[in-house]
Amino acid sequence: MADDKALTTRAADFSAWYNEVIARAQLADYSPVRGCMVIRPNGYAIWEQMQQALDRMFKETGHQNAYFPLFIPQSFLAREAEHVEGFAPELAVVTHAGGKELEEPLVVRPTSETIIYSMYAKWIQSWRDLPLLINQWANVVRWELRTRLFLRTTEFLWQEGHTAHATEEEAEAETLMILGIYRRFAEEWMAMPVLTGRKSDSEKFAGALRTYAIEALMQDNKALQAGTSHNLGQNFAKAFDVTFQTAEGGLGHVWNTSWGVSTRLVGGVIMTHSDDVGLVCPPRLAQYQVVLVPIYRKDEERVAVVEAAERLQRALRAADIRVHLDARDGLKPGAKYYEWESRGVPFRLEIGPRDLAAEQVMLARRTGGKEPIPMAGLADRIHIEIDAMQQALLGAAVARREAATIRGATRDQLVEAMNGAGGFVYGGWCGDAACEADIKEQTKATIRVLPDEEFRSDPAPTRCVWCNRDAVTEAVWAKAY
Amino acid sequence: MADDKALTTRAADFSAWYNEVIARAQLADYSPVRGCMVIRPNGYAIWEQMQQALDRMFKETGHQNAYFPLFIPQSFLAREAEHVEGFAPELAVVTHAGGKELEEPLVVRPTSETIIYSMYAKWIQSWRDLPLLINQWANVVRWELRTRLFLRTTEFLWQEGHTAHATEEEAEAETLMILGIYRRFAEEWMAMPVLTGRKSDSEKFAGALRTYAIEALMQDNKALQAGTSHNLGQNFAKAFDVTFQTAEGGLGHVWNTSWGVSTRLVGGVIMTHSDDVGLVCPPRLAQYQVVLVPIYRKDEERVAVVEAAERLQRALRAADIRVHLDARDGLKPGAKYYEWESRGVPFRLEIGPRDLAAEQVMLARRTGGKEPIPMAGLADRIHIEIDAMQQALLGAAVARREAATIRGATRDQLVEAMNGAGGFVYGGWCGDAACEADIKEQTKATIRVLPDEEFRSDPAPTRCVWCNRDAVTEAVWAKAY
Repeated sequence: MADDKALTTRAADFSAWYNEVIARAQLADYSPVRGCMVIRPNGYAIWEQMQQALDRMFKETGHQNAYFPLFIPQSFLAREAEHVEGFAPELAVVTHAGGKELEEPLVVRPTSETIIYSMYAKWIQSWRDLPLLINQWANVVRWELRTRLFLRTTEFLWQEGHTAHATEEEAEAETLMILGIYRRFAEEWMAMPVLTGRKSDSEKFAGALRTYAIEALMQDNKALQAGTSHNLGQNFAKAFDVTFQTAEGGLGHVWNTSWGVSTRLVGGVIMTHSDDVGLVCPPRLAQYQVVLVPIYRKDEERVAVVEAAERLQRALRAADIRVHLDARDGLKPGAKYYEWESRGVPFRLEIGPRDLAAEQVMLARRTGGKEPIPMAGLADRIHIEIDAMQQALLGAAVARREAATIRGATRDQLVEAMNGAGGFVYGGWCGDAACEADIKEQTKATIRVLPDEEFRSDPAPTRCVWCNRDAVTEAVWAKAY
Repeated sequence: MADDKALTTRAADFSAWYNEVIARAQLADYSPVRGCMVIRPNGYAIWEQMQQALDRMFKETGHQNAYFPLFIPQSFLAREAEHVEGFAPELAVVTHAGGKELEEPLVVRPTSETIIYSMYAKWIQSWRDLPLLINQWANVVRWELRTRLFLRTTEFLWQEGHTAHATEEEAEAETLMILGIYRRFAEEWMAMPVLTGRKSDSEKFAGALRTYAIEALMQDNKALQAGTSHNLGQNFAKAFDVTFQTAEGGLGHVWNTSWGVSTRLVGGVIMTHSDDVGLVCPPRLAQYQVVLVPIYRKDEERVAVVEAAERLQRALRAADIRVHLDARDGLKPGAKYYEWESRGVPFRLEIGPRDLAAEQVMLARRTGGKEPIPMAGLADRIHIEIDAMQQALLGAAVARREAATIRGATRDQLVEAMNGAGGFVYGGWCGDAACEADIKEQTKATIRVLPDEEFRSDPAPTRCVWCNRDAVTEAVWAKAY
């Protein structure tokens, strides 16, 4: 794809558009290793902003970071029966090291429950050691057959939280508290609205008691599971013998939770906000929130304009705004606009001799709209613009999701939606896994969540959307990434 | 080792002491996987401070972060002859994935030159794309036979910078600029003095033209290579065909550099500053710079004292001081002092009813000394104390190093030092690798660096310390980790 060719449109081919947005904005690239991607600086900068915001939220709620080994003895995976069954097909295995065949093969971690809880067994003795609240930022490997940049790659980056508690109630409270953090992060930072709720048994994490998730709807009306939080019960504590002396002097197994979000979120940002011109990035996650473009015709204009731009850059930086001054010579302003638009920079400030004279700059928003604003108080104004754009992006995404949502659906409506426009389809569910499997086979839709109260329909559905038996719960179906 | 037992002393057994300091401060632990360690929250917090400081320095000098795959096709390593020879014995190899044997085995990255320069070949077309200045924070694996927590582990965390330049001069300038950043970081953050200089050919990075290093001296008078910066010349550019259109319209191979520091630095901090009581951590890298301990005899004193401590905590936090309030009940102040001392917290503030009445707190320094200081202006005072302790730790380490340094050494002095007290031994070198190898065999000492001008002796040695032929350069020998 040449840099001056228009992108494939979303309407024409969403999947081609997605890949082209990533290529044009230089967010990621394919690597020589099947299924592994390279996260290029422009994409990694978004992930860094995500990490910083999430890390702060985890620390504010008492979690500490640590680091556990990449390799897991193969036998560890087998100790929790559901866990090994869930992950066995996706494992990458080191069989040789240091020039020799290993006695026991080592699995490259697909997730770290087993290695982490084997350490917790050593560290936790008494109720005084609880709760233990640890998070790690790490790479994991799951051997995927069909991969897509950011959304599903053989290796990906993520955080995985692993906590141990004295009681089931505390573990459940932690699981839900983290779900709330994920939701808040999705809404406030990614400007991406999410449903929250519980996963059906067939969709839960291999080894969990209960899995909760945040689910977003992309512009092609397919769902994206954007984060999961698991109440692991005592499954791993029993498999790894993580016991503690209770306050009453007895001996108990701890209750664990685990939870994670990954570089998949970068794909979520792209598919939620971007347009046919290229990336649209919410300002709170953008590498550069503002790009300054000096405009001049003659060389004698250049010095004054660039100096003014440098002054503005310093003022914005001092106000903690991420700003880039594009003072490249030999490139016309229009070419710069085009480049920064395709890279998703939220705000462009153009400054030419006439702006200088009028003590103003031209503000152009990536989401549309252009107007002169005064140089005085520029940083304050940009902060206001940042908040407004975050809100506008979130609002637009909510409106899109609502327009693509059917509540109280009939079987025909579910089938029709999945054959056609997609979207979230709410309906009753009998709770029978056979019904769930049949729906998946016939429509390719899965239950995304059994929605939390806030998202449930009123009145609640009384019949299963598929078999018409009594509904035991409401469910949300969608085709998903 | 029970928590109330005194540590083995440095004098009695430095190596046992090192392990016990780590265990007592809960910095790291052994994992079930041979040679891999777990970095516990207290240790990881130091690494996070290191990361933040270095990351800022890299970004201020124009570098961006990115992420490249963990796995490298085995054939890639072989493309640069010296490189594969250097790393082949240490590789961990994935032969099976997704339930199948792979057609080509994948190496778990020991370092990422090959995979990164294969991507640079795709990204770099013209001189306009240069310099390309990328860094990555990642885990790497080198199958080590003898491992030690932080210092040499099969898996470790590090940053690796990889840059591409249009000219040899620019690559050399980058290599040395980064060496300067490493030195500044070691001195200003770790309070660890370092020598800088070039490595001899036998000690350089496999595939580099020239390797530069920072070298520190630990309390047992063994050297620690703490960071390396490599001018790779065009070796990898030729192996991976990384070419660019020059400004003059020709075609050239780029010039590369690579450079890295790792979690080994945490080991360097421990061995530079800690004492027989436990960890001593320079305040700029400490998880908690200040711990507040409320002191009260009766319950009715507790409320006022804890409230005052909370007030001080807020004031210190507002001034960007990392502070922890230890308000645990059921633990005597003395037990708290002991715990925080062994964990290396630089400053303890004790606050009791009499302090409250006098509007003062008792300040105790981890490095010795205790005095009352006024509550008014506490944060400013702590900032001054932080700077002073950084300086004092650096000064003490410089004095220790100088006391363990011999300049203009004779062959007998070199042998004697290496049989005895250790330290840095400066002497002339004929430049002959055979002489270097003989010294290593006879004394276990290696050339740490051919020192940069600032560190060279005056007058310069004229004869080789070993063979007495003409010296072509001065060299610094030491036994090393």
